[in-house]
Amino acid sequence: MKYIQSTGNQTVKNWKKLQTKKGRSRQGKYLLEGWHLLDEALKANENISEIMITPAALEHANPQEMPEEVDIYEISDEVAQQLSATPSPQGIFATVIIGQTKEIIPEKMTGAWLFLDTIQDPGNVGTMVRTADAAGFKGVVLSEGSVDMYQPKLVRSMQGSQFHVKIIEGDLSIWTKAFKKNRFPVFGSELNDQARSYDEVGQHADFALVMGNEGNGLSQKMLEETSMNLYIPLRGQAESLNVAIAAGILMFALRA
Amino acid sequence: MKYIQSTGNQTVKNWKKLQTKKGRSRQGKYLLEGWHLLDEALKANENISEIMITPAALEHANPQEMPEEVDIYEISDEVAQQLSATPSPQGIFATVIIGQTKEIIPEKMTGAWLFLDTIQDPGNVGTMVRTADAAGFKGVVLSEGSVDMYQPKLVRSMQGSQFHVKIIEGDLSIWTKAFKKNRFPVFGSELNDQARSYDEVGQHADFALVMGNEGNGLSQKMLEETSMNLYIPLRGQAESLNVAIAAGILMFALRA
Repeated sequence: MKYIQSTGNQTVKNWKKLQTKKGRSRQGKYLLEGWHLLDEALKANENISEIMITPAALEHANPQEMPEEVDIYEISDEVAQQLSATPSPQGIFATVIIGQTKEIIPEKMTGAWLFLDTIQDPGNVGTMVRTADAAGFKGVVLSEGSVDMYQPKLVRSMQGSQFHVKIIEGDLSIWTKAFKKNRFPVFGSELNDQARSYDEVGQHADFALVMGNEGNGLSQKMLEETSMNLYIPLRGQAESLNVAIAAGILMFALRA
Repeated sequence: MKYIQSTGNQTVKNWKKLQTKKGRSRQGKYLLEGWHLLDEALKANENISEIMITPAALEHANPQEMPEEVDIYEISDEVAQQLSATPSPQGIFATVIIGQTKEIIPEKMTGAWLFLDTIQDPGNVGTMVRTADAAGFKGVVLSEGSVDMYQPKLVRSMQGSQFHVKIIEGDLSIWTKAFKKNRFPVFGSELNDQARSYDEVGQHADFALVMGNEGNGLSQKMLEETSMNLYIPLRGQAESLNVAIAAGILMFALRA
């Protein structure tokens, strides 16, 4: 165990830099907060680099749970406050090595997949990853121009689902072609002349669902490449649904 | 038109107080931000008290859109920045009189209703109100101990749906009894021995759906008072769904 009291310590400064995309990219790791996420990371045999814990949190810790090969730091409440995204931190943090996020598409890619086209809002993306996990989806592909996937708010809203579903940064156009080559449908989600109501297309084992960002919807290119576009009929006076809500309704309705 | 340049002005200080529950309750009004919400408020004939606009925003304004009986203030960018919850404000704000939020339940209360049991997260509550609107629900009832309904983040996530569906603060126990007296089902959302899968109970015109908070679920009292409890079968390894996602799936599946 190492001890760090001061927020001015260089190690603490490096941890704080993990709150930025540049810091994560330079150090090749990201920051987790809270017991639940640490447990999930340990269960998933993630490559944990460091664990940081306050004296108060240490009293609740099971020493056997702490992996031996990981550097453990006892940190002061002030340091915890600096690392935390919440006003009352649980006092437990970890840094996790970011693995391979770009993946070459295998010949046959089965299961249900969620494609996210340039979605920037971290809370929405995190919630969609969590929902994809709950709906039994195999993976989520984020297009270029999407939010950085280890952004702290995104990590918080995923609630550990990054350890259960594959998360890949990729070119949606290439992924769409691969799915269609296998005769798996790629469903866009946007109202146009040919769009069909989501509850008319049945349930599927192997398919992809593409969600676009709330402001602009799917890119024109994606709209042309999908097998079919779906819409959710709205009844009230709301003009649209939140993108994560629409994704949740579609994922649970389409998944066989 | 009145002009306010200084953030130290007492009127500006009063507007800023509308960001707190105490301020809203003392002044009996809440703060709206952005053209979309102002348009929705005007369309809905809401009781608008003041409109605040920056010179830049004024150039985009249609003077005929501005209601005559309302006080209009031209404000500086600094004042706009103080009132705004976003880093780049559109420069248009309004204060809206808070109407009657407590309502005596009529003998026959028809349509679909969403009951929220002690849910505190403003983003989730706002998104659920917006989704209820899109699903054609008639109203949302917030229990005691729920988030204050005119909290700025909640107002932002409702996207104007507060003008389309009724929003009422009430005793869910009384509302539940009134629905059951009319032989309308009140569906809880929690897994227990008697719970049924949400896709086995058909679609309904007149019913209530009760959502509990994510940490604790429905209160024991509510669980006993509902007609039936529903659950959403999960397939992956996620332990639960975000409450707004679960509400979205249930509202769209249950509504006839």
